[in-house]
Amino acid sequence: MKLLKPLVGAAAIAALPTLGLAQDGPVAGVNAATDTVFILNSLLFLVGGFLVFFMAAGFAMLEAGLVRGKNVTMQLTKNMALFSLATIFYYLIGYNLMYPLGTWSVEGVLSGVFGPGVLEAVGVTAADADDYGYASTGSDFFFQLMFCAATASIVSGALAERIKLWPFLAFTVVLTSIIYPIQASWKWGGGFLDTMGFLDFAGSTVVHSVGGWAALVGALILGPRIGKYKDGRTIPMPGSNLTLATLGTFILWMGWFGFNGGSQLAMGTVGDVADVSRIFSNTNAAAAGGALVALILTQLLYKKPDLTMILNGALAGLVSITAEPLTPSLGVATLIGGVGGVIVVFAVPFLDKLKIDDVVGAIPVHLFAGIWGTIAVVFTNPDASLGTQLYSIMVVGLFTIVASGVVWMILKMTVGIRVGEEEEITGLDKSEMGMEAYPEFSNG
Amino acid sequence: MKLLKPLVGAAAIAALPTLGLAQDGPVAGVNAATDTVFILNSLLFLVGGFLVFFMAAGFAMLEAGLVRGKNVTMQLTKNMALFSLATIFYYLIGYNLMYPLGTWSVEGVLSGVFGPGVLEAVGVTAADADDYGYASTGSDFFFQLMFCAATASIVSGALAERIKLWPFLAFTVVLTSIIYPIQASWKWGGGFLDTMGFLDFAGSTVVHSVGGWAALVGALILGPRIGKYKDGRTIPMPGSNLTLATLGTFILWMGWFGFNGGSQLAMGTVGDVADVSRIFSNTNAAAAGGALVALILTQLLYKKPDLTMILNGALAGLVSITAEPLTPSLGVATLIGGVGGVIVVFAVPFLDKLKIDDVVGAIPVHLFAGIWGTIAVVFTNPDASLGTQLYSIMVVGLFTIVASGVVWMILKMTVGIRVGEEEEITGLDKSEMGMEAYPEFSNG
Amino acid sequence: MKLLKPLVGAAAIAALPTLGLAQDGPVAGVNAATDTVFILNSLLFLVGGFLVFFMAAGFAMLEAGLVRGKNVTMQLTKNMALFSLATIFYYLIGYNLMYPLGTWSVEGVLSGVFGPGVLEAVGVTAADADDYGYASTGSDFFFQLMFCAATASIVSGALAERIKLWPFLAFTVVLTSIIYPIQASWKWGGGFLDTMGFLDFAGSTVVHSVGGWAALVGALILGPRIGKYKDGRTIPMPGSNLTLATLGTFILWMGWFGFNGGSQLAMGTVGDVADVSRIFSNTNAAAAGGALVALILTQLLYKKPDLTMILNGALAGLVSITAEPLTPSLGVATLIGGVGGVIVVFAVPFLDKLKIDDVVGAIPVHLFAGIWGTIAVVFTNPDASLGTQLYSIMVVGLFTIVASGVVWMILKMTVGIRVGEEEEITGLDKSEMGMEAYPEFSNG
Repeated sequence: MKLLKPLVGAAAIAALPTLGLAQDGPVAGVNAATDTVFILNSLLFLVGGFLVFFMAAGFAMLEAGLVRGKNVTMQLTKNMALFSLATIFYYLIGYNLMYPLGTWSVEGVLSGVFGPGVLEAVGVTAADADDYGYASTGSDFFFQLMFCAATASIVSGALAERIKLWPFLAFTVVLTSIIYPIQASWKWGGGFLDTMGFLDFAGSTVVHSVGGWAALVGALILGPRIGKYKDGRTIPMPGSNLTLATLGTFILWMGWFGFNGGSQLAMGTVGDVADVSRIFSNTNAAAAGGALVALILTQLLYKKPDLTMILNGALAGLVSITAEPLTPSLGVATLIGGVGGVIVVFAVPFLDKLKIDDVVGAIPVHLFAGIWGTIAVVFTNPDASLGTQLYSIMVVGLFTIVASGVVWMILKMTVGIRVGEEEEITGLDKSEMGMEAYPEFSNG
Repeated sequence: MKLLKPLVGAAAIAALPTLGLAQDGPVAGVNAATDTVFILNSLLFLVGGFLVFFMAAGFAMLEAGLVRGKNVTMQLTKNMALFSLATIFYYLIGYNLMYPLGTWSVEGVLSGVFGPGVLEAVGVTAADADDYGYASTGSDFFFQLMFCAATASIVSGALAERIKLWPFLAFTVVLTSIIYPIQASWKWGGGFLDTMGFLDFAGSTVVHSVGGWAALVGALILGPRIGKYKDGRTIPMPGSNLTLATLGTFILWMGWFGFNGGSQLAMGTVGDVADVSRIFSNTNAAAAGGALVALILTQLLYKKPDLTMILNGALAGLVSITAEPLTPSLGVATLIGGVGGVIVVFAVPFLDKLKIDDVVGAIPVHLFAGIWGTIAVVFTNPDASLGTQLYSIMVVGLFTIVASGVVWMILKMTVGIRVGEEEEITGLDKSEMGMEAYPEFSNG
Repeated sequence: MKLLKPLVGAAAIAALPTLGLAQDGPVAGVNAATDTVFILNSLLFLVGGFLVFFMAAGFAMLEAGLVRGKNVTMQLTKNMALFSLATIFYYLIGYNLMYPLGTWSVEGVLSGVFGPGVLEAVGVTAADADDYGYASTGSDFFFQLMFCAATASIVSGALAERIKLWPFLAFTVVLTSIIYPIQASWKWGGGFLDTMGFLDFAGSTVVHSVGGWAALVGALILGPRIGKYKDGRTIPMPGSNLTLATLGTFILWMGWFGFNGGSQLAMGTVGDVADVSRIFSNTNAAAAGGALVALILTQLLYKKPDLTMILNGALAGLVSITAEPLTPSLGVATLIGGVGGVIVVFAVPFLDKLKIDDVVGAIPVHLFAGIWGTIAVVFTNPDASLGTQLYSIMVVGLFTIVASGVVWMILKMTVGIRVGEEEEITGLDKSEMGMEAYPEFSNG
């Protein structure tokens, strides 16, 4: 298991290979050539990266399926736009801010835009010692970018059906260029949480809880949808297309193999590929556990299985195993994921009781299960300290609450973040976009 | 071509590499390092595995698209649940039952749940000789699991729109933990069919016909949907969403590259990767052949091309090539797939004549084309014996018919397997789930 | 960067490795073994190939989402059929016509159907010197086929909702077996455009503009849909399912990593994998640029963001970077893609002014952005000559216009290419297919 995401920059690259290879070094005489290790590590980032990229489609389908028909076009637009903004602002600002801590500069930005920036030169050769050791920076950047974008995707679902497009996108810019990278640097950039021994393999806290906190603060400031809570009751507002919500869940499930498996950060040794294999199997087991527990619990509690709970149960299982997908056995991974399923089934009505309106269940799935997953590391990884895990959850949480709270409040007080009442009732697609997602099938 | 799926367990792993590498051994001096072979073999399982995983989404979309709108939520629920159950029961029982034959034990189960189980330890090194040879057991488990889950997915489509959720899931548990693994051990666990020389590269019989037999027996015991056969006529019950059915078919088609290509079981030599490449090309050609033949035949027979036949034609082409995707030429692969298309076009109305109600066409696609594909091996692989192929088809078929028949009958006589008449007419989504897939677009 | 797609055939394969490896040759003593280079190169083609395969699903979803509900089944049928035809006719005729130029023969066709054809023998060994050097021909064929099929997919969207099925498929046969391969041979088969120094990394011209020209000529000959242009105004005909159109766009975006990344044609050296990594990152940046520019421009021009423009903006960004995804910096890649977004926003209404009815926006996306991308190479690659780029655009364009014009005219004058007026108004699904895509949700 790697404790750090790679430090990039020439010096770091020159230093890392020794560390990386010392750990699982192959036996002399039969070892993979150094070239091959570099290629295979880069390949892991590329394959993992396109799988995590596809999670953007998964989030888009999940959210489009769980909002009402009158807000689908807007939700799709937000998902396309947030991913595009994450792409640009993460390379302009975020990536340099994250690795290594604090070296962001105007020159760095200009270099990112017009110069070599974060990518190595075209056609490097093995003789370029700087680039010859761990993995290509281009593949690392590609992979890391997708984690930043996933964080932003989490927010969009919770705030659906009532937030204005442009303020939401402004928040996305701050989240992907500053909030996410700064706190991520504390762990994955080799910052103080990492030094303390905080363990978060693929980001139950660094990615999922951060997205979840930002969504929670946004949901509180934004308020619930009109008509959602009436006379002390919660009015169901069923999603418009459960087939696409299910497709989105399957896509996210598949993307998670890249998310967790790629976070091994290396595939060039026998030990690394065997670990990646464990991670794939455990990630799958945790998702299955979360889905099944939600199925059984909703049957017991409500006498009818609830598909949206099952979908969110699978996702909560995935989030739960993300902090430590390597060390558990298959059975324990299933149980860790299963607890995620329990969390979803109880947290969704609990949030409704608090009148916190989370349209797709993002807060239970990503925040609550993310916290659980981060704590669960202590059960399977002897290197983990409960105190450090809790401290890190709190530090990251407080930072994200304060930072995103400030941004949401500034947006609210300046441009406003909520659409007008009439627009909300009509639906954002007609009022804000002038374009319906299913124009021929409206229930007018 | 490999005749065996890998035997796992330390002894088997220590032995296999020699066999594997002897076949396509690289020339001394320029050969891939042993490390690299292990990594590349594992990588094939991981990439093949996530592609076959995605077939679960493909089945879900295909089935959700081909059932009527009032049963979509239920069909999606079944697909999420069956995959999750397959994940858990295959590692609890199935995998150990399959490799090697008959070594299942309570200790093995406990080890799977709480101990190392089927995965190697974390951070193995090349010096751990046991784990250093063929491929990681974690990647092999991940890949094999997906085949077991695919078998269960086949059943769910045929029995849609009338079977109760929990009895269906109970059947899934038996299928994935016992029925599939036992018969799979006869071929892929090195059992008696393998010893006899039975050839089934990626499972036309071992996976597809088994799913098909289980579906056929289930459909017979369950009976047709209300109103499907009336006064000697078959009443069409068109699928609710052909776009998603088409998407499901494309996803399955893509997943099949992992299904067949990964079944080469090795990618660490020039010969293996060249064989995997042949398999990808032939698999694609067979799907194209099946789709085109169905297009042309339905045009000729009915004067109008039938999209659901074309989709099933492509899938039947894929099933047909699965028993031997390596040895055919591109042209012969297309023809083998094309015969699959013929089978679908004639078998779908034939089953209707027998009043066997297969909602999505799973029996023609997976059972009939699976039988055809298993027989077709004799035309392209000189090692195949027609007698052995037929004998194996029969043995596997009889076993699956009897075993699944017993399970279906027990379920029918105890908890019952069919929803009430009123529930069926109302639709399972409202009556059993209380949740519609497209609540705003009902045609009420 | 490679300037050539690989020449296949035994002699070419024997010669190429030296060229290929000379470029980025690893340092002696730490180099990847020759076996490993062959395997990794083949693996790039296989992974790139299945990603580009999935673009067929992306095109199908995009087009099904952008046509009206009454023509969805037909559009899906066309997409399944065109991919299947491309598969068969590219191996029968196209591939041999493309590599190397002009060696197509009846013997070659027969060999493709019944003999070894384009694939190497089963179980080649490293000792088979002919097959031991660059990459497996099976993987190369698989990858190249997908480019040919993509070209045909481009055409189907533009001509939707009014073209007859069988004449469209007849055109597809000519396009994939003759028109595409001949012009592709001029560049990727080592023909005269390649000799002149024409640069088109992954096919802004060779793939996208060719599909776009064929679509433009077809749209001109076919004429606009009934009712599209009335009294000097353009009547909006909104797509029936924007969720699936968005899904299609995300799938195409993901597939493009294979499209552009795989076109590096090698992954077996440090330099090659670093270049593939750059290409992934740049491809992603260009898509983001195109999407964001379309978002901002439609907001400014129409006061409302337009989701279909944003989707096409992302696709135009992808097409724009396809001619040179390697040399730009991330910032310049974003800008190149952004210009693609500008093109889409202005070209869509411009075509409408000319009464050229392109249902999905394929001509702006693939033709106009393809031309732009081909020209943009001169800004980032010092080896490019503006004159040569323009000359090549013109030569390929003229050839495609004339060739496809002849085929369209012959089809028009013989069997006719347009459905009857009544059929068009009723919708092709009912009139031509007798099968609706969403039978329960019609707005009748």
